[in-house]
Amino acid sequence: MACDFYQLATPGVQGLHPYLPGKPVDELERELGISNSIKLASNENPLGPSAKALDAISAEVKDSCRYPDANGFKLKQALSERYSIETSRITLGNGSNDVLELIGKAFIQPGDEVIYSQHAFVVYMLVAQSTGAKAIVTPAQNWGHDLDAMAAAITDKTRIIFLANPNNPTGTWFSEQALRSFMTKVPDSVVVVLDEAYTEYVDQSEFPDGLKLQSEYDNLVVTRTFSKAFGLAALRVGYAVASEAITDLLNRVRQPFNVNSLALVAAQAVLSDTEYLQRSVTVNNEGMAQLEQGFKALGLEWVPSVGNFISVDCGKDAMPVYQALLLEGVIVRPVANYQMPNHLRVTIGLPDENSRCLEAFAKVLNS
Amino acid sequence: MACDFYQLATPGVQGLHPYLPGKPVDELERELGISNSIKLASNENPLGPSAKALDAISAEVKDSCRYPDANGFKLKQALSERYSIETSRITLGNGSNDVLELIGKAFIQPGDEVIYSQHAFVVYMLVAQSTGAKAIVTPAQNWGHDLDAMAAAITDKTRIIFLANPNNPTGTWFSEQALRSFMTKVPDSVVVVLDEAYTEYVDQSEFPDGLKLQSEYDNLVVTRTFSKAFGLAALRVGYAVASEAITDLLNRVRQPFNVNSLALVAAQAVLSDTEYLQRSVTVNNEGMAQLEQGFKALGLEWVPSVGNFISVDCGKDAMPVYQALLLEGVIVRPVANYQMPNHLRVTIGLPDENSRCLEAFAKVLNS
Repeated sequence: MACDFYQLATPGVQGLHPYLPGKPVDELERELGISNSIKLASNENPLGPSAKALDAISAEVKDSCRYPDANGFKLKQALSERYSIETSRITLGNGSNDVLELIGKAFIQPGDEVIYSQHAFVVYMLVAQSTGAKAIVTPAQNWGHDLDAMAAAITDKTRIIFLANPNNPTGTWFSEQALRSFMTKVPDSVVVVLDEAYTEYVDQSEFPDGLKLQSEYDNLVVTRTFSKAFGLAALRVGYAVASEAITDLLNRVRQPFNVNSLALVAAQAVLSDTEYLQRSVTVNNEGMAQLEQGFKALGLEWVPSVGNFISVDCGKDAMPVYQALLLEGVIVRPVANYQMPNHLRVTIGLPDENSRCLEAFAKVLNS
Repeated sequence: MACDFYQLATPGVQGLHPYLPGKPVDELERELGISNSIKLASNENPLGPSAKALDAISAEVKDSCRYPDANGFKLKQALSERYSIETSRITLGNGSNDVLELIGKAFIQPGDEVIYSQHAFVVYMLVAQSTGAKAIVTPAQNWGHDLDAMAAAITDKTRIIFLANPNNPTGTWFSEQALRSFMTKVPDSVVVVLDEAYTEYVDQSEFPDGLKLQSEYDNLVVTRTFSKAFGLAALRVGYAVASEAITDLLNRVRQPFNVNSLALVAAQAVLSDTEYLQRSVTVNNEGMAQLEQGFKALGLEWVPSVGNFISVDCGKDAMPVYQALLLEGVIVRPVANYQMPNHLRVTIGLPDENSRCLEAFAKVLNS
């Protein structure tokens, strides 16, 4: 009789659902018999990559037969200079997803508890589940994190608390004051992960700068990424900033060559491309206003967002709307798996992409 | 009092040593006051990357702001066609290191046992240790795996057996008959990982083709990489071929975007570059003969290798030899951490790199 490998898998892994990836755009177009579709589904930077990043890749690509620098020496130097953080507090990852997994791998044993909020980024659930932790999911407040409820959920089994600021897919955020107040309620022995994947888009004056705060809290780990405002999602590079002790532990479980060479040089280059970052933020601000205005005209409500995306309420089950938008060549993201079955998350695009998106919504909702 | 995060880490992680990466070549040159050094330290392809791979990267790089295809659809199709394996049996990884970790993550719980051979590739130890498994290390026979000893070490706690064919850093190998005989002794419930990172270099007629054998053994997982003969170490892409059930489990624990876009297209392109692969093998065969001849002339012994590297016996502690070679601008790899303190592993280079290496050995050993 054949062996049942599912029974041999660890309990956490047995309970995981296989990831169901979206199809590549060209495959989808072929299936649907459409062309010239626009993708506003993955919170990607619509500008395309920075020219400086592309130049750095061109200069490096001839050495593709060589292993990457396992220590990411030059990128860490560049991060250190840009953000005034010691290189001994930086852990590089294959996207910030990788860094989030390293934190779980370093600290979670089966039976430990992990706290995150309802509607929070799905990777926190995956990290908890795959490591055999018990996930404690606190109810959201106005779609955002209820930090008081999260603090109240701490037990002596709590190992990690995941906070997203702003959160994906809601775009909600909390202030520096709220974060500081929260940290006073968290025992030193609980690791607080502050996921700042979208921080570059935020200009609210009360918004905390995790990299500055990190040095005040030894148990605070801040994660960031080059996939969003820095426009390098294809290349996979993110990082964590933490105390030296936690950084040492994360580097023990890190695969030595987890960040590829082209990602290392591209990230280093785009860090110095302040014009690109500024343009990314400006395009995003203008696009956000354009979409909000358009949704308002259509009588739709949305969750106010400070990210590069906005979750709009279809007022009914969003899946048929999603499917109908697809046939118009507009790809957005259903968020039913985030307990938001009536919402669709729309990434802010270029002005004419936003226009096409709004026209498609108008057509689909009025048909 | 500050919290001791080392005490909070999982027991396996507490026991891990932080990875000590080699310095980038340009840093090393600056420190030593040398220039024009040659790197024969990481079993990289000395030819540089395939022109077809570079063309594929050039065509893809403009979309670096987009996430990779999470399913690696086109690369899996290309692997499927090239090796006659169903795409449902392929798991892509951020290098084969990533795939090896996924296997550990899917199947190992603290207290389980993992078997591998003395002198075997270090990642097997890291996977065992970081997941909290007990590592059972069987003594080598003539530097290679003692498959009988490995079979005899199986207990009811054994979850995974790691085999490397050929093995790094010894270059030793076992035959198809030996592997088949071994598999008859392994219970169906034990996962056998056959690491074939260097398989493309081997032309021994008795050498097994893991991809063909895999379909006969549900508990056999074969791993391969694009980092060696395919010349794409910088980009990080490898894969596993396994039963559909195990493939499903590996994909549950895989980070959705673990393989970057440029790696996906470059790997797909180099798969069709048969001329490049043939040239890689030819250059390696000629370089191996050159180094063997040179070592013989120097009165040195070595472990006969079928890989793209050769471990040469310095007849004494190899570290001073390594350091002296460095000052000659020749970077090789000490393997004391593989219980081979008198050996240095030399990657096969281009003809004049091999000549420089041999001249440096002659100078250093005769001084």
